[in-house]
Amino acid sequence: MLARSLAAISKRSSVARRCFSAEGGPYEHRAVSAETLATLKELFGDRVSTAASVREHHGTDESYHAPCPPDVVVYADSTEEVSTILKLCSATKTPIIPFGAGSSLEGHISALHGGIALDLTNMKSILSVEQENMSCRVQCGVTRLQLESELRATGLFFPVDPGADATLGGMVATNASGTTTVRYGNMKSNVLGLTAVMADGRIIRTGSKARKSSAGYDLTRLLIGSEGTLAVVTEVELRLQGVPEAHKIAVCSFPTIQDAVDTCTVIMQMGIPVSRMELMDHKAIEATNKYSKLNNIVSPCLVIELNGTPEEIAHHTGTVQALAEDYSVQRMSWAETEEDRKELLKARHSAWYATMNLVPGSRALSTDVCVPLSNLTQVIGDTQADLEASGLVGTIVGHVGDGNFHVMLPFLHEDEPKVREFSDRLVERALAAEGTCTGEHGIGSGKIKYLRMEHGDSVDVMQTIKHALDPHNILNPSKLF
Amino acid sequence: MLARSLAAISKRSSVARRCFSAEGGPYEHRAVSAETLATLKELFGDRVSTAASVREHHGTDESYHAPCPPDVVVYADSTEEVSTILKLCSATKTPIIPFGAGSSLEGHISALHGGIALDLTNMKSILSVEQENMSCRVQCGVTRLQLESELRATGLFFPVDPGADATLGGMVATNASGTTTVRYGNMKSNVLGLTAVMADGRIIRTGSKARKSSAGYDLTRLLIGSEGTLAVVTEVELRLQGVPEAHKIAVCSFPTIQDAVDTCTVIMQMGIPVSRMELMDHKAIEATNKYSKLNNIVSPCLVIELNGTPEEIAHHTGTVQALAEDYSVQRMSWAETEEDRKELLKARHSAWYATMNLVPGSRALSTDVCVPLSNLTQVIGDTQADLEASGLVGTIVGHVGDGNFHVMLPFLHEDEPKVREFSDRLVERALAAEGTCTGEHGIGSGKIKYLRMEHGDSVDVMQTIKHALDPHNILNPSKLF
Repeated sequence: MLARSLAAISKRSSVARRCFSAEGGPYEHRAVSAETLATLKELFGDRVSTAASVREHHGTDESYHAPCPPDVVVYADSTEEVSTILKLCSATKTPIIPFGAGSSLEGHISALHGGIALDLTNMKSILSVEQENMSCRVQCGVTRLQLESELRATGLFFPVDPGADATLGGMVATNASGTTTVRYGNMKSNVLGLTAVMADGRIIRTGSKARKSSAGYDLTRLLIGSEGTLAVVTEVELRLQGVPEAHKIAVCSFPTIQDAVDTCTVIMQMGIPVSRMELMDHKAIEATNKYSKLNNIVSPCLVIELNGTPEEIAHHTGTVQALAEDYSVQRMSWAETEEDRKELLKARHSAWYATMNLVPGSRALSTDVCVPLSNLTQVIGDTQADLEASGLVGTIVGHVGDGNFHVMLPFLHEDEPKVREFSDRLVERALAAEGTCTGEHGIGSGKIKYLRMEHGDSVDVMQTIKHALDPHNILNPSKLF
Repeated sequence: MLARSLAAISKRSSVARRCFSAEGGPYEHRAVSAETLATLKELFGDRVSTAASVREHHGTDESYHAPCPPDVVVYADSTEEVSTILKLCSATKTPIIPFGAGSSLEGHISALHGGIALDLTNMKSILSVEQENMSCRVQCGVTRLQLESELRATGLFFPVDPGADATLGGMVATNASGTTTVRYGNMKSNVLGLTAVMADGRIIRTGSKARKSSAGYDLTRLLIGSEGTLAVVTEVELRLQGVPEAHKIAVCSFPTIQDAVDTCTVIMQMGIPVSRMELMDHKAIEATNKYSKLNNIVSPCLVIELNGTPEEIAHHTGTVQALAEDYSVQRMSWAETEEDRKELLKARHSAWYATMNLVPGSRALSTDVCVPLSNLTQVIGDTQADLEASGLVGTIVGHVGDGNFHVMLPFLHEDEPKVREFSDRLVERALAAEGTCTGEHGIGSGKIKYLRMEHGDSVDVMQTIKHALDPHNILNPSKLF
């Protein structure tokens, strides 16, 4: 068994391996050596795999980027095992790519240089829940829905919802956020501390159970969003929220994007604590009407959710209603019951599949930018015009309370260059509007050139930190930089 | 003039300079050389000072730590000037200590190794206010009250309130927070981006005007709380909030700390959006009764503030009232008018001076720890017992919605060792309760040994980052580490 694997590995190493990403390639193959593989097998037995299907799975995310499999997949069960593996990788300069749900969108988990995919999905224990402190500690492989279900009886919930059933470790890696961020913040606001393993295998703990601290450099927030390039996060201490007594949702159709965004802006300025505020453009409404057999007005739409006590909701309902009317709302449907709510949310929830359905047999770009609220209407309008002019089919949905929106763009293979050019222009537009090239998906290998466009010389400072903490560049190499 | 200064400097360099801090000393004097001083004079003219009174002022903060003056004070007017000065310091390995309001509390601005105090108080322009985006950009020398006053006409405000009229740059340096953090978060939640000058003089911009980003390492939050040891922050982009329509305050007396903290915990769990929730222990009430001639019940007290629309306030008033009654509240006074409000807040506002007044002719320790809410009652109770047993006089006030509290402890010179031992035990207690050695004051030179107690090997990672970004250790040396 071992002999066969070694043979397979050495065969693979001798074959020219050509991995590409949006940013370049082919990348130098830093293959896992036969000795390293033997050591891994000795230590982890059948939790080491070189099977093609397993490797393939671990090199593939949910994006349109070309997959790139690792040489070996290892399943770790504990922080100490992660430390052992990193010591080995450090000694042998072997690339290592942490792997959770594989739901990232910018080629984050591609093994561009080969190496080891470190599968952390066995680490799925909820280690403690402290109701009085409104916090819990989980292993990195716990998924969002698992956590939601295990917290149900406590009256508490973890508010960050990126859509996908990502692992909490993955959500740390990309600084996930989503529909509820307008109310509860992103991962940076909702993580109290971490256990992480550094490139050389050292195990550190950052943060504490306290809700705030001024004790030293904020390693917690340095690691959040670092995409597995600085350390492997193995445990996460999360801040929880009380489950609100009630929810209420409105779907509001506006004549123009401007009206929808203006309504959103004034709701933010007035500090109305909406728990969700999602924009769908008319193309997204058109697509979801067709896909889910709905009958929404084909015009820009805001989905607004309120939560809290019935009295709070009643109070804010009136204000939101009045504000939307100020901005010429055409139709405003409020859901009171859970069933109504599900019906109203159908459009938002089916947006991705409805969009994919527009171009049968397509792959899709799902990109995200985030801009100041003051420039949001302009940037969305220009983006719609660009789509139109390019002859591309795309829908726009967004967490607009934060100025964050996605373009979902299904395309056929021959249109890929056109799509990449569109993506370039979208980012240029967002940066010209003083925004960011990604609000929540991260850089991965797909947005590397944009990172420099956005942050200029700051990127050198980031790279200095990377070199200092990972001198052999073993942690998820060729991501971010 | 120049000759006299040079003579003064060289005389000073030859004198044995003995600077001590809580953590050690005497520190090696890395004096500003005559050439460096001459260059500074040439570049900055009368914005360079070696006058004893000026130097003294710049080595003194508001803490009980021994002052330690710099050799030279330079007043910078722009980011470019800061860059010039840092290039010079980098080339000559001269220590440089950024200086704002001097209101920090852990010896942050002591020139332990001599060098240059970089006074940034001339940089006090509000560069832009974007109402629609609810953000503004300020130079680092703008103070909190200046900003409050200049924003008044916009209907927006910056919510972080550390008490002192600190500069925004200083508030970034220590990751300031305060009474309103329970609602609006600390500096990390309310800063969108920075302009900073690195040790070698490079100017970088971090973050953007977008409300969130996943683009690369979060240098913004790495610099927040780094106490001038990684870079000099010269501009800050701030997130603003809409001014609430109304405020309402209650002062609630409870039989025990447990009752007060339980009330606070359940308010947090229910997600009631209090804008302030401050605890004062019976000693603080006693002191303020005496100092401000008030008549509050001498027992633990919560000051709870609600803000929002009158309807929201009315709704939450009922809930807060009912909860406090569940926990045996003895007296609950609500202020409706601005005058009533000021009267009720007198106790909280005068707590510092009232405490100082308990021991005439004293200096005072003002320390802060932050613990999980679930351990707060125990930690405060043990701390009160410790004060009693040590024969020390101290009051406790705290931002208890966050688990953060201060001990204010006036003492006479001969009691300093006893006070330091008390402070050690307080921090040990907070760490044993899984909290942090400082919720908002920072480490400075005063809490260095606690940083290692709290973060263990993580401190090595912090130091690796420090060495990578400031290889000659010129930026605020012997702070944090």
